[in-house]
Formats: sequence, C-alpha cells, structure tokens
Amino acid sequence: MSIADDPATDAPGYKWVGSRPIRPDGFDKVTGRAKFGADHYLPGMLEGHTVRSPHAHARIVSIDTSAAERVPGVKAVVTGADFPAVEGDAMARNVPHNSIARDKVLYEGHLVAAVAATSREAAKAGAEAVVVEYEVLPHVLTAAEATAEGAPLLHDDMITNGIDPAPEQPSNIYQRNILARGDLDKGFADADVVVEREFITKPVHQGYIEPQACVADTTPDGHTTLWVSSQGHFAMRDFSAQVLGWDITRVKAIAAEIGGGFGGKTVTYLEPIAIKLSAKAGRPVKMVMTRAEVLKATGPTSGSRMRVKMGARGDGKFTAAEIVLEFEAGGYPGSPVMPAAMTCLAPYDLENFSVEGFDIVVNKPRSAAYRAPGGPISSFAVESVVDMVAEELGMDPIDLRLTNAAVEGTQAPYGPKLPRIGMVETLEAVRDHPHYSAQLGPNQGRGVATGFWFNAGMNSSVVVHVNPDGTATVVTGSPDIGGSRASMALFAAEELGIDMELIRPVVADTETVGFNDVTGGSRVTHATGAAVVEACRLIVADLRARAAKTWDVDIDEVEWVDGQAQKTDGSEAPLSLKDIAGKWDRSGGPISAAFTHNARGAGPAFSTQVCDVEVDPDTGVVTVVRYTTAQDAGRAIHPSYVEGQFQGGVVQGIGWALNEEYVYGDDGRLQNASFLDYRIPVTSDMPMIDTILVEVPNPAHPYGVRGVGEVGIVPPLAAVANAVYQATGKRFTELPINPIRILEATMGE
Amino acid sequence: MSIADDPATDAPGYKWVGSRPIRPDGFDKVTGRAKFGADHYLPGMLEGHTVRSPHAHARIVSIDTSAAERVPGVKAVVTGADFPAVEGDAMARNVPHNSIARDKVLYEGHLVAAVAATSREAAKAGAEAVVVEYEVLPHVLTAAEATAEGAPLLHDDMITNGIDPAPEQPSNIYQRNILARGDLDKGFADADVVVEREFITKPVHQGYIEPQACVADTTPDGHTTLWVSSQGHFAMRDFSAQVLGWDITRVKAIAAEIGGGFGGKTVTYLEPIAIKLSAKAGRPVKMVMTRAEVLKATGPTSGSRMRVKMGARGDGKFTAAEIVLEFEAGGYPGSPVMPAAMTCLAPYDLENFSVEGFDIVVNKPRSAAYRAPGGPISSFAVESVVDMVAEELGMDPIDLRLTNAAVEGTQAPYGPKLPRIGMVETLEAVRDHPHYSAQLGPNQGRGVATGFWFNAGMNSSVVVHVNPDGTATVVTGSPDIGGSRASMALFAAEELGIDMELIRPVVADTETVGFNDVTGGSRVTHATGAAVVEACRLIVADLRARAAKTWDVDIDEVEWVDGQAQKTDGSEAPLSLKDIAGKWDRSGGPISAAFTHNARGAGPAFSTQVCDVEVDPDTGVVTVVRYTTAQDAGRAIHPSYVEGQFQGGVVQGIGWALNEEYVYGDDGRLQNASFLDYRIPVTSDMPMIDTILVEVPNPAHPYGVRGVGEVGIVPPLAAVANAVYQATGKRFTELPINPIRILEATMGE
Repeated sequence: MSIADDPATDAPGYKWVGSRPIRPDGFDKVTGRAKFGADHYLPGMLEGHTVRSPHAHARIVSIDTSAAERVPGVKAVVTGADFPAVEGDAMARNVPHNSIARDKVLYEGHLVAAVAATSREAAKAGAEAVVVEYEVLPHVLTAAEATAEGAPLLHDDMITNGIDPAPEQPSNIYQRNILARGDLDKGFADADVVVEREFITKPVHQGYIEPQACVADTTPDGHTTLWVSSQGHFAMRDFSAQVLGWDITRVKAIAAEIGGGFGGKTVTYLEPIAIKLSAKAGRPVKMVMTRAEVLKATGPTSGSRMRVKMGARGDGKFTAAEIVLEFEAGGYPGSPVMPAAMTCLAPYDLENFSVEGFDIVVNKPRSAAYRAPGGPISSFAVESVVDMVAEELGMDPIDLRLTNAAVEGTQAPYGPKLPRIGMVETLEAVRDHPHYSAQLGPNQGRGVATGFWFNAGMNSSVVVHVNPDGTATVVTGSPDIGGSRASMALFAAEELGIDMELIRPVVADTETVGFNDVTGGSRVTHATGAAVVEACRLIVADLRARAAKTWDVDIDEVEWVDGQAQKTDGSEAPLSLKDIAGKWDRSGGPISAAFTHNARGAGPAFSTQVCDVEVDPDTGVVTVVRYTTAQDAGRAIHPSYVEGQFQGGVVQGIGWALNEEYVYGDDGRLQNASFLDYRIPVTSDMPMIDTILVEVPNPAHPYGVRGVGEVGIVPPLAAVANAVYQATGKRFTELPINPIRILEATMGE
Repeated sequence: MSIADDPATDAPGYKWVGSRPIRPDGFDKVTGRAKFGADHYLPGMLEGHTVRSPHAHARIVSIDTSAAERVPGVKAVVTGADFPAVEGDAMARNVPHNSIARDKVLYEGHLVAAVAATSREAAKAGAEAVVVEYEVLPHVLTAAEATAEGAPLLHDDMITNGIDPAPEQPSNIYQRNILARGDLDKGFADADVVVEREFITKPVHQGYIEPQACVADTTPDGHTTLWVSSQGHFAMRDFSAQVLGWDITRVKAIAAEIGGGFGGKTVTYLEPIAIKLSAKAGRPVKMVMTRAEVLKATGPTSGSRMRVKMGARGDGKFTAAEIVLEFEAGGYPGSPVMPAAMTCLAPYDLENFSVEGFDIVVNKPRSAAYRAPGGPISSFAVESVVDMVAEELGMDPIDLRLTNAAVEGTQAPYGPKLPRIGMVETLEAVRDHPHYSAQLGPNQGRGVATGFWFNAGMNSSVVVHVNPDGTATVVTGSPDIGGSRASMALFAAEELGIDMELIRPVVADTETVGFNDVTGGSRVTHATGAAVVEACRLIVADLRARAAKTWDVDIDEVEWVDGQAQKTDGSEAPLSLKDIAGKWDRSGGPISAAFTHNARGAGPAFSTQVCDVEVDPDTGVVTVVRYTTAQDAGRAIHPSYVEGQFQGGVVQGIGWALNEEYVYGDDGRLQNASFLDYRIPVTSDMPMIDTILVEVPNPAHPYGVRGVGEVGIVPPLAAVANAVYQATGKRFTELPINPIRILEATMGE
C-alpha cells in the first residue's frame, strides 16, 4: 500500500497533528550549516588523539608519557592515572574503565592514553610517542569460549549474579536472569509438534554516519562546557561527571546535531577524556573518532548463542517455549540479554515458558544499545522457530501468529497485563495486503516475522514560552534525531491553536532546561511530546485566566477554541493568543509554563513484516526484491518521519541479516574495521520499503502516540531468514546469511 | 565608618544571605577567560564597519553603495532601504531610525550605512567607498535653541503631546508633562523664605569601559543567533526584531559578559545592522564600536535647563515648590524628564508643588538611560535650592531635610502613599557619623544632599533545577553586571539549605528561559532574586512531598530545616536534599521549578551623602577629600557588592559634577569624543568612598531587598556643588564645576 493511500494518516479532527510540514531544522541540514559534533571551533582549540590497545587482553605494566610530552605542540597527556579510582564490581567499572583503561585492557582498541596538541599531526605524533608496556594475556571472543572450562578471566573478582547459592569461583558470566511461567514439561507433553534449534549471531554496529566527536572547554576553576553529538547531552554530562568524579554542575553539555546514533550514542567515550585534556592544557580540546575507532572501541550490539525449543498443538496453539540466551557483553558486563529475554515471546499469549539469559564478558568492545536492544537477536531465533512450527503444522505463518497473538489483557511474559495494543492489527494488515498474495518468481521466497518492543517513557522536562508578538518557543532537552523538533512544534500548534510556523522548537543545554533522558527507547515523541502537550495546556489555562480577567468573569466562562479565548455566552469579541500575548505585561507578566514528565508504561508497539528475496544460485547473493512493513504507531504525529523510522529499522535489519558482522582474527583483532569491509546496506541494495501505518491509539498518551523508532528492526532478521528458507529450502540459523553461507549450504546439492 | 564595623551587615538569622563569598564568575573574569561582546569568534566571520553622518542635521539625498560593493573582501552593504518602513510618529521612529537613518540624519554620528567584509581593513575601505549625498540643514543643540522662535525642526510632523488643546504647528517639543498638587500661590504666600534659581547641565555619558559589540549569525531561512554584550539580551532580541520587522522567534540572543552599562546598554544600536549584514552575506558578522562611536552615537543622558523655586517657613517646613524641567532628548524623543520630575521632590513631604517637564529634541545623539535616569539632574537643582534655603534659614541642612522628610504614609509627589522607607534613617546616619562633625581645613567645604529613586520591579523568569548529586542550578535571564550570579546563589543556598558552592547560577539565552526585563532599574537582586526565592520554595515543597511519600505521611508532617526534610514528630531519620535528589527517578522524576515574577511596587530607596571638597584657589581644581554615603539597601544580600554599588554611583556623580560634559562646536560636532578629552574620574582622583549600609527592610520583598544600583548617583551633583559653595562662597548652578568655571567665578575677587 502506498503511503498516501492510507486513510489512517489523515488524523481526522486534528489540524496540525498528522500533517507533513518540512522540519524546522531542515534548511540548516540541507545547506550544510547544521553543526554536528566535529563542527565546533574555538579560538586556541587543540586537537586530541588517542592511544589504544593493540591487544585483545593484556595487563598494563607501565605507561611512559615523558617522550610524548616533549613532542612539539603537545600540551597535555592523560592516562588512567589522571582519573579517580573506582569502587565496586565490574559493572561499576563499566563506564570509567571503558572510557580509559587502568590496570588492564580488555579488547583491541581499549583506550589507554590521550594527547592534546596544537595540530592533529602533533597530537598523533604525541600519541605515537607514548610508551605502553603490556603483559599480553590469553583472550576469549565468544560466549562459548568465555564459558569454557579454564577460560581466562577478564575480571578476576566477578562472581555470577542471579544464582542461588552464589558460585564460589569467579567466571566470565556477570549475570543469569530467568523469566518463567507455567509448567514446561506439561506444555511440551501437550504439543503435537516440537521444534528446537540453536542460533548464532555476531556483533553488528549501529553504523551511524557521524563518528563520535566533541569539544571540551575547561576553565581553571574546573568547570567545563562540552559540545557533543549524542543521543542525550544530559547523559554525556552525568557520565562525564562520574568518570571525572566531579559535581554534575561542573559540566555544561550542549547538544550538537547528531548524524545517527541508534542507541550507540548514549554513553561517553571521548567526552571525559577531552574534558580532562582541556583542564590540563588550559585550552579547548576537540576529539573526533576515526571510523576504525568507532568500530573497534564504541559499542556494537552483542553477538549471541541461543537455543529455542517450542511446542504447539495441531490447531496451532503454542503449548511451551524453552529458551536459553547467551549474550556477549564485550569487555564489561551489560549486554541487552534481559530485554532480549523479555521481548522475544511478547507477541504471543503463552502459558508455559522459560527464558534463561546469560550476560557474558568477552574480549571484544563493550556492547552498547542498538535499536530495540536485544530484540532483533532473540526474535531472530524465536520467529525462525515459529516459521518452522508453521511449516510442520502446514499452517499459514500469519494464521499461526494470529492463533497465538497477544491482545489487550494478555499477561506479557515479563509480567504485566498488556494494555490496548495493535499486534493483531499489524498481522491482519500484512495478511490483507496485496504483497502477501503476490506471485513469487523463480529462486524467490517469502518470509514473515513479527516483533514486539516495550518502548520507553522515562523523563522529559520542557518549557513553553509565549512571546509578546504571538509566537511561541518550545524548549526541550531531547536531541533531535528523527525529526522531533517538527513533532514538538506540531503538538504545540495543535494545542495552542496557532500556525506551526509561529512556533520555534529548541533543544536547550543541560544547564537551562530540566533533566531529560536520552533520545532513545523510542521515547521522545511519546514522553517529550506528552510533556509539551501538558505544558501547552498550562499555557492555555493561563491565557484563559488572562482573558477572564480582562472580561472580569470567571475562568469557567472562557473556553479556548482555534487559538482564541471565547466567552461561552459569546458576549465578548474573542481574544486571540496574539491579542493576549501582546498585553502580557499588564495581565501578570511573562507567559511561560514548564512541565516535567516522569513517563511510566509507555505502551508497547508491534510490527509485522513480509519480505520477498531472490537468491542467486550461482553467486549466493540474496537480493531483497519486495518488503512491506506494518507497524502500530498509535498516532502518527508527522507521518513522513514515522514512515522513515519504519523503513530505517527494516533496512538496518536487512543489513544485519545478510551482510553485517564483526570478523575477528585468532589474534583477537577486528579484521574489518572500515565501511569498506564492514558492509552496511546502501540505497542500491534495497527495494522501496513499503509501509503500512497502523494506528491503534496508545491509552498512555494524550494523542495516542506509541514510539516508532525501534520495533521495526525486530522482525527483519527472521523475515529475511524465513524468506531465504523458502527460496532455498535451507534453514539458516547463523547470521549473516552472506553468499559464503548460502553457497556452503547449497553447493553440496 | 569602615565597612567592617557595620553591624547591619551581619544579617542575623541568615546563614548565606549577608555573607561575602567570591563571585562565581570571578575566576573567569580575573583570568581573562570571560567572554565579552567582542570576544566571540566564528569560522568565516566577517567584520562590520559603519558609515556615519558627519553632519548634525541633514537630508539624505542619495546613497551609492556600488563602489563599496566592489571593494575586495566586501561581502555585504546595508542602508536604511534594507529595513522596513516605520508607521507612526517620531517616537515610533525612535529605535528603527536611530539604528539606521532613512531620509534624514539628526546628529553627527547617526548611522547611514554599514559594510561587512573579510577583514576590518576591507570593511573600513568599503565604508569609505560608500557615497552619501547630503543636503545640510541648520541644527539646534540645546533646549533653548530648539524651542526658540523659528528654530529648525527635526521632525516636521511632531505635535507636542500633553497640551490641551493640541498645538496646530509642529515643534521640537515632543511632550509636556505636569505633576502638581495643592495651591502654589498659597504655599509661596505662607513662605518666610523663597529661593529661585536656574540650572544648566550638559549631556554626560555612562562611560562604560566596554564599547558596544556583537556577533550575528543569520541562517538562509532567516533565523539569527546574536551574541551581545548588553543589559538585557531579551531587549536586544525584541528591539532587533522590531527594527528588522521579524517575528521574535527568529532572533536568539545570548548574553555575553558586559563591561559596564549603567543604562546605556538597554537599547540596540549595531545589533539589527549586524543581523542584516549577516543575512545578506550569508556569514557571521561581528561589529564593535570605537570609543568615538560610543560617545557620538550611543545615548548619553540628557542635557537640561531647569528652574526651581522653593519656599519655606521659618521653622524649616517647605510650603511650596515650582519647578520647570527642559530636557534634551537628542535626535528622537524620550528624555528622562518624566522620572526626573517624579523623583526630585520625593524625599520630602510637600503640600503644594508643580513640576512641569518638557521632552525636547535636539541635534545630538538620542539620549539613553543612565543610572537613575533623570534623577541626578533634577535633584542637582532641587538639592542646591534646599541648601540655599537652609542657609537662608540658618538651619543645619540635615535638620532642614529631617523637618520635611518623607516617611511611611507620605503621599509621594508622583501619586501613591509611600510604603516603609529609610529616608529618615539615611539622614540620621549621616548626621550621627563622625564625618559630619569633623573639622574642615582651609579652602575646604562640606556639602550634603539626599536623593530618592523608585527602583523598578518588572519581569523576571527563573528556573531552579536540583541535580541527582544534590547540586542545584539556578537559571535566570538577567545579565550579571553587579554580581547577581553570586546574589542568586546566596538566595538559593539560604532557601534550599545547601552550600552556596553546590549551586551553579546560569544566565540563559532568550530561547530557553522565560522573558526577563533588562538588568537595570536596580531591579535584579530585588525581582529576579524574589523569583529565585519563590522557585526555591516550590522546590522545597516538592522535596517535602517526596519525603512525605517515602515515609507514607501527609506533607504537613514534613518540614524543611537546614537542607533536610524532617518528620515533625522526629520518628524518621531526616532526608537531606542529596538523599532525595539521588532517588528522584523513583519519586516522580526530575526536580525543577519555574517561577515568573511580575514585580510591581519595587520599594523606593534613599541615599544621603556628605562630601568634603578642597578648592585650589590658584588652579580652580576641586578635590574631593572625604565622602560618606548612607544608603538604604533594605537587606544587603552580598554586602561587598552593595557597597560597591554605593561607591560606584558616588564616583560617577562626582565625575558628572566636576568634569564630564559633551562639548560641541558651532558646527554641531562633538569636540571631545575620546576618553582623553571626555574625562571620567580615575582612581587617583577619588578618596575612599565610605559607606553606611542602612537596612530598612522592604515589605515588597521576601528578604526585604531594595534595589541599590541607582539612588547613589542622585545626591552627588548637589552634594559636591553645596560643598564647593561652602569652600568658595560661590553657588554653581551650571555643571560641570570644572577649573574654568571656578576660576571665572573667583578670579574677579
């Protein structure tokens, strides 16, 4: 279905919400004026360069910076010794020690020292002059290696959490989690069909276009201003303060524009280092990662080993699911195994299940969030098995999913009863779409998969100001990634009843607006949007009160209609927002309202997707020839950007399914640390991703909004694998399904 | 009395208010890191240069910019034709036409065009290549010339307001105002003594050290960011938008630090010009005035001609006062004659009076506010006459003032009954001070004068955030001139009960914080301070509510003492601000509070001052040998900065009394447009100005604060003149009392 044909986007009753204006930041972005992380310049600014471990696992015996300090132009050198010691376990060391290593390096690329100098060349020369003596240790790269008997330990004080009684010996497993309900034995006994498989996925990177970059300017009295490209400048402030051991008020973070993040720009890497270099040098310091640094030293998502066993009755009803997830966290704990466990069965109403998750450290970069963290991985496994169950039962895979679909009131595997959701609607939308019944060509196959994501609420603080000329300013602290300036302005236009062009949406720094969590978790349109709506409603109440005062009547006799105060009995000429704003000084002063939203229970989203592939039998190349995604947006505030999110998630999922992976040598070093060798999809690889905008309003939001940024990446891995199975007759349980694997599987025939 | 001896500064009962910590911006300022108006640099930034009228009064026949545009490096040229036409009268033209002339130039230095180029030299060459053809017109420089029969008119459509019936012919008088009460004839008939004199004052400049400077960066879609040194970046935004004809939301103004303003940096000069140049050039533009431009083209305060007649009974009671004030507004109307009229009699309880004021345009730079605008001028006249009345009656001048002093309940000449005030207290403080009875030496004299100032309230918007580590951020939109970051932090420390060092005071830009009026009118400590206090009280209420929730009790059972929540019955361990802040995410989200203050009735301040001068009979040089000022601060939040304000006002007043003046040639051109020739006092000219801190709490403020920035400059002109009279026996009614005037008056003897 083409976008324009979808009646749901008409958003009846709204004037602005549901329309598709150009984004307020669009002009700056297309003309190249928008300032991204590396675009900030200050007089006297130094350039930073990093010293990183060449080893996957080693003890740092000594660091000698004296030669580096003598390199002409070098103004400051920092090592781990410049940062405060960390109390606590491996999780407590996570951010500080990942920012800069102390006694050990845990992966190739782990930061060991950094240099600031008057030019990039001098900084590089300085970095090369830092002498680090290592005692190289044996390394482990996968969950299997890390959990093998006698495996070398990354953290010799790490005792597995979540096991009772606690193990006496340290291991590489940080945590075991389990979600379980019902009676597995009974469930499998009731099954007519049981399918069990093991799955393997590799670390993949978010692949954002803009590398990490920041500028720090630290004053002699120990305050710093940080210009940073990130998903959350409050997070950059707080993590930097943590690593530095500073009061939060000593760090002011300003949000640069951001060239993609997808979860990967929610933690600090260079920021505390740049701040400390600036403090030592007494000058501003810019640090920008190379692509190799991005791939080696920022967080990809976890690689995994998974086992899924599911049983179903002859009528399709699932009777049991038993799942084990082993996730590679990288050098420090914190893989997304928990959300992976919570989400993979959430599309279904299931009585008997067990999902056991393990968070395992390995000598690879510490994993970071990546779009619906963990969801695509575990759903790849579950949705592949669901596809196999359908085949065994001879059922249509959508019918099988409809038979088991979660609905309002279903108890989710992670605990609560689900509120109103759109799972069934997305399944039906795909089933009824022409794509689903279209003829396939030779060597083609069709796959279906579905996915769930919680969506996050979290905290948003906003302020709305009405200016004396009848314009308004909407201040948030959420970096604009997916067009949120436009969405916030649309909400405000709708609520205030003025043209969107009169509204200026602003992303403020960490000092001026209240706390805001990261732009992530698909939370901004939902939570920051709700805060904007509520702040505007406070403004409207204020405007009504001023009109009431003008007319000397009770506020209840004044209503706000189409951007103007009207007396309910019509006995006064209406007063527009501009009329009231123009006289603010005589009616009580400036017109501003703040709202802080602590959003809980954001409202889950579902997506069902259908994928057609064609597999070249000679080369093993898989081409996606048609792709349709149906996703529940709750309410699309700016449908173009919603559709863009649908499409973006699918494209990243296709890349993950077919091409992307971290390739390591036996030496524990990454072999494909560039976009030439780590191949993300490009436009010519992709068909148009058709979107079906499903709108099942979210009861937890004043406009019914559900987050749309994440769930779209959950189904594609399985959808592609299921399509390849249909095209080739081969079931691929290890990603990526690249030509080598295709040919290995098919050449024997 | 030395500062440290004053018990009033102890501020009993407060922990932070009344203490003297180092200002939070101090480190940056003493290390040269603070960014003033000219200190901002952007990549690709151009430099601007101005083209100004060499004539005091002329019609612009034509402007040819074509040669200028061909000068290498020139990227943009603007003239009045680039700005929208102005509807309305001379007052409506005030800001737009003073920013850049249209059909006429009205004073030497009036801006005619501006050029932006890649270097300062290229911009200057471009400016020199602009060809302006003028038709020179006859000019008027003083109130007397401007109101003479047949005087040339500056605005040929200007009909005097405030006269009934309205005159039929245009004139150079924009407005006549009158304040009157009682029966003048009866009053003078009751008098035993009547004194009448005419007085003359010259325009004097605020003499701020930092010339006007700004950087504008305008985007192709017509939004601009303006870095500007000013007393109010909101005013810079709003005036710039007005001159440009833009929506306010198109201008974002960021407050640079400010090197003095004293009222002179409350209106735009270069800002809309820089914005327009940046728009045309597509690059950022910096504009910085030279000192000559500052003196010729920014606003000094008005010159004046005044007549004062006062009568008193033998016992000292004033019976009547009749005053006429003619103030020179400069090229556009808007002199401070109205506040001058309202203030000059306000120290006294007077039944019969008339104060008539005239706002007169002349071919000199448009006047701007200068510290207690108009007050020093009219008080110079009135306080000189009061001194003469005392002499005629043989009364001590302080006793005479005590006899007539305004007290709580006195009806002020400008209308309302006065609230609690400290007029009597300042008089008594001087009377009882050792200075007042100290022996004078040869050629020395002692003068006394008193002064009143309203103080302004106006609008302030603030936000206070509590951070998760127990620190707090206080966000205002008031540029910090006199140490307001420190004062705001002191208020917040007192209210929240945490150390001042944990509080970060921030001056936010115009997009992020609500509207704030200028830092002027002595209003910031009062009004912005009250807003901070109220916002902190909202924070404390929130903290108490969170503690109550934690303890599952009613909020009434929780009180806030010494920075912690205490259960009134003592049954729970107290929770500190840090305890509560650390768990904000579980108790309702971010902790922020906004407060918008529309302060009315700010509470007047009085100052009484005593001055000893020594007059060198040979050179005519007047040296101030001792000076003591008693001023009512209501409550001194940071006593050192309060005393600094007391002293600064006195020093500027002494300069005005003895040295400063605009000297014009017959050609209407300013002859002393540099700090070499326009001589402001330097440190070696001054004795230590002793301060007596009077604290009569202001009922309109939660801590009793009165503004302290302005009233200190009201008495010195008369105090010096009265002292010179006692030293020389000569009454000087024209300022400045420079060696020439002294010698002219005394040489004949």
